[in-house]
Amino acid sequence: MHMEVLAPKISKCPDMEPSYSKSICCPNTRFLSIKKSSKGEQMKNICQRIGIPCRALKSDRRNSFSAGMKFQLDDVIEAQQFDRDTLNAIFEVARDMENIEKNSPGSQLLKGYLMATLFYEPSTRTRLSFESAMKRLGGEVLTTENAREFSSAAKGETLEDTIRTVEGYSDIIVMRHFESGAARRAAATASIPVINAGDGPGQHPTQALLDVYTIEREIGKLDGIKVGLVGDLANGRTVRSLAYLLAKYKDVKFYFVAPEVVKMKDDIKEYLTSKEVTWEESADLIEVASECDVVYQTRIQKERFGERVELYEEARGKYIVNQDVLKVMQSHAVVMHPLPRLDEITVDVDADSRAAYFRQAKNGLYIRMALLKLLLVGW
Amino acid sequence: MHMEVLAPKISKCPDMEPSYSKSICCPNTRFLSIKKSSKGEQMKNICQRIGIPCRALKSDRRNSFSAGMKFQLDDVIEAQQFDRDTLNAIFEVARDMENIEKNSPGSQLLKGYLMATLFYEPSTRTRLSFESAMKRLGGEVLTTENAREFSSAAKGETLEDTIRTVEGYSDIIVMRHFESGAARRAAATASIPVINAGDGPGQHPTQALLDVYTIEREIGKLDGIKVGLVGDLANGRTVRSLAYLLAKYKDVKFYFVAPEVVKMKDDIKEYLTSKEVTWEESADLIEVASECDVVYQTRIQKERFGERVELYEEARGKYIVNQDVLKVMQSHAVVMHPLPRLDEITVDVDADSRAAYFRQAKNGLYIRMALLKLLLVGW
Amino acid sequence: MHMEVLAPKISKCPDMEPSYSKSICCPNTRFLSIKKSSKGEQMKNICQRIGIPCRALKSDRRNSFSAGMKFQLDDVIEAQQFDRDTLNAIFEVARDMENIEKNSPGSQLLKGYLMATLFYEPSTRTRLSFESAMKRLGGEVLTTENAREFSSAAKGETLEDTIRTVEGYSDIIVMRHFESGAARRAAATASIPVINAGDGPGQHPTQALLDVYTIEREIGKLDGIKVGLVGDLANGRTVRSLAYLLAKYKDVKFYFVAPEVVKMKDDIKEYLTSKEVTWEESADLIEVASECDVVYQTRIQKERFGERVELYEEARGKYIVNQDVLKVMQSHAVVMHPLPRLDEITVDVDADSRAAYFRQAKNGLYIRMALLKLLLVGW
Repeated sequence: MHMEVLAPKISKCPDMEPSYSKSICCPNTRFLSIKKSSKGEQMKNICQRIGIPCRALKSDRRNSFSAGMKFQLDDVIEAQQFDRDTLNAIFEVARDMENIEKNSPGSQLLKGYLMATLFYEPSTRTRLSFESAMKRLGGEVLTTENAREFSSAAKGETLEDTIRTVEGYSDIIVMRHFESGAARRAAATASIPVINAGDGPGQHPTQALLDVYTIEREIGKLDGIKVGLVGDLANGRTVRSLAYLLAKYKDVKFYFVAPEVVKMKDDIKEYLTSKEVTWEESADLIEVASECDVVYQTRIQKERFGERVELYEEARGKYIVNQDVLKVMQSHAVVMHPLPRLDEITVDVDADSRAAYFRQAKNGLYIRMALLKLLLVGW
Repeated sequence: MHMEVLAPKISKCPDMEPSYSKSICCPNTRFLSIKKSSKGEQMKNICQRIGIPCRALKSDRRNSFSAGMKFQLDDVIEAQQFDRDTLNAIFEVARDMENIEKNSPGSQLLKGYLMATLFYEPSTRTRLSFESAMKRLGGEVLTTENAREFSSAAKGETLEDTIRTVEGYSDIIVMRHFESGAARRAAATASIPVINAGDGPGQHPTQALLDVYTIEREIGKLDGIKVGLVGDLANGRTVRSLAYLLAKYKDVKFYFVAPEVVKMKDDIKEYLTSKEVTWEESADLIEVASECDVVYQTRIQKERFGERVELYEEARGKYIVNQDVLKVMQSHAVVMHPLPRLDEITVDVDADSRAAYFRQAKNGLYIRMALLKLLLVGW
Repeated sequence: MHMEVLAPKISKCPDMEPSYSKSICCPNTRFLSIKKSSKGEQMKNICQRIGIPCRALKSDRRNSFSAGMKFQLDDVIEAQQFDRDTLNAIFEVARDMENIEKNSPGSQLLKGYLMATLFYEPSTRTRLSFESAMKRLGGEVLTTENAREFSSAAKGETLEDTIRTVEGYSDIIVMRHFESGAARRAAATASIPVINAGDGPGQHPTQALLDVYTIEREIGKLDGIKVGLVGDLANGRTVRSLAYLLAKYKDVKFYFVAPEVVKMKDDIKEYLTSKEVTWEESADLIEVASECDVVYQTRIQKERFGERVELYEEARGKYIVNQDVLKVMQSHAVVMHPLPRLDEITVDVDADSRAAYFRQAKNGLYIRMALLKLLLVGW
């Protein structure tokens, strides 16, 4: 595996009849992208017929992509789309990215590429992380946290129309949306890659990837680990995604430590059981912490409690990661947290080398660099 | 005509007396721009006297600009400023830009140039299009959709003062404003080029240019075409500008197809008549569609109807471009729309090769690339 | 002194015990920065022990930094941190920056560096100035005017946690905050440089620097000058900072010309007296203007008057810089203003070569370029 600055991109053409004109075929693609490769052969024939200066025709790289590798990455929509081999392959690229970021300032790997961050609701942390990733690789960014304006109630444009416009301005779209499923719709429309940066209560796959990557980096393995999920296990998409992803590894054991009102839901428990993943619920954080490789703490989300302030206060104070927890944790174990944190981890924990949450945030940068690289220039 | 990365820019100096100091002469210009060429000779003399390292003096390019070309482009303020030759020349550059965007990712044509997008009201679509144009040519962008803050009621700064500050940070200003005439005031103040990206009910000249460019690209000519303008012809600045611009071409015929409440206004009709442009009004979209080279559909703007919801609903449903319309259209004809669209074009039209509206949006990118190139580095 | 594109950056490691792992040592630094040099030796030893590929170890540049120069610039937090030698040294670099901006478009001095503009309240003017400075030197920018969202009441993240995240995405943080002291807290947390772009009623040090730089550029000296401060002397942090800074120079004389309700406060007067700086209060702007090298006008801030509209209107109209004032000013003297201005300087003054306020705004660009250069690549 190697990297190069300007690898050929091979276009996806939409399903089309032979009579379609050239301008219909690739109305918005700058040059040809690696997207939707399953339609590659069909496209190749059509492009040839209608005379697109199709780089795919001049090189055999497409074949080598699909030949040598287990998968072709078109879009990043949900955590479940990744199998174990894919995850490992992405993590390997993320390690390369870590090297680039640390040792090769001014990388030009994505020079000439333009990413559109199309945010229908502000999420400054996620946006800055993606934009940093793109710029660390020499790419450029178009940004809006105002994307609702595109499809305002007053004007009523569909998401699909917006995507068709934005794909004409950029090479990849990173989208945050308030509706579950929006990312999938965008990807179905776009002829360029789409990354889901969170769609409502739905998915936030890059968060799930960086969590697993962090465990692998910190603990050194993913098989045979013990993970304590602590805090709001009912509402957090983070812990749910993590449970799904880690279920792909061997001999993983979960501990669920949650206040009664925000316990882990049955669907996840049943899923884990069906995958022969061991899990148990516990009310004793200290005991769990002494067993685990990873203590994954989460924030109790006040906004989920509405008027029930008392319930919130009770839940919030119940399981705190503090010096008492650190004391029983093994020396190789780590504390993780998706951030932002309130007081569910006390500030004095930060100085301990096992506090991994800021490194975890930083790993988000490497994962996003890796995904941008893979989607834009391939392996 | 050729392009080069760092063509000399020849400065405009404001009207000045010989005693003005150097710093007064060009307080805010980085190096010399091609602006306000009519004042060129006067400036040249003054610069020489006060010792500015004036690149204009070292080259004869300025002469060749005005000698070989029909016009010198200083600012883009309104559609009417362009005559037929100018339009053709810009379209030729837009074609070059299309080539660059498709075949030369990472162009550095505008490397080292900085564009300020100074938006007094958000217009994400227009902003992203300009910013993409700048970045596709290797230029950089400063952006604000918060420009009202500069001149907030509380602080009360004039537009002129704001421009004098912003021109010190950038090489070209793209301005969106809520007041008609604001762009002209900005251009009169600025010593760097200004592009009007829409000023209130006034002008949106780059939209007008991209519309004409699209017709020329899709139909292959501008003389002798038949254009059906459909929908809200009373309020849309788009169709009004288009009528003005196409009146510069020979044997153009217009059909106006509009609900009674939003009919084309008399000033345009009289203007066309005075220019010996043929036009007729019709209530039969099908018949018009069968005649036309271009069916230019527009959105009925709900916001113009206020309380009169019934009138809006009636107007809105009256003329829809759908499969029935497509069926009668000639095979070389196209459907255009400035976007966003609601349901005035049905979604099933999108798949037809004659649906040109997303290509039209994309052409906005090429037109803006061309204008940025022309204003910053000349022909 | 010379400049180079990729000078080594020498990392700050936090205070740490030898047992700290590598990833703890520099969790967020890309490569090693020159920050917190006083901790340099300790860091060097630790880095060596834990095996960081520490560029500092490979070069002796750090020694030359601290050997040849009077100071090491880590952060820019408040005007008072600069002594006279430091100011002169910064101004020398600002002159170099002026040359670069005017004569070397497309400078790559900061290529590969990423600046985060972390604004907790919008300040478009200041933000664009910093972003232009970074881009004029080839650097890149991550931007948010939405930074409150990071630490929203709902989520409650601390400033320190936000900084720890953002420092992972960037090489330098430019922060605007609504709370006095926020910049100092950010700098204490960050392992990368922090520039204060205004923290509430506290400090706005780059404004103070550009003011002094402008006087030096326009008048040619800072010793022995006479400065009239006019307008709102009670509330403006600008004039207060200016008084503090100019007190470092010899034989400076101040005149205070202010409406009764916004007179200069006693703390500044006492400070100046303690530094043996002469000052006097006057109600006669014409007489003061005839004496001064600099007439520094300021805006009466309506927002400080609340309900007392009459008082505001009276104060506002009292001291106007107009043609009458210009007439008595010496030919070498200048009018300055931090902008935005309302009518405290009449528009007809703009055309006079002694109107220095737009050049002053432009100088803000050079000062910020200089600071970014110094903090990121050193002298």
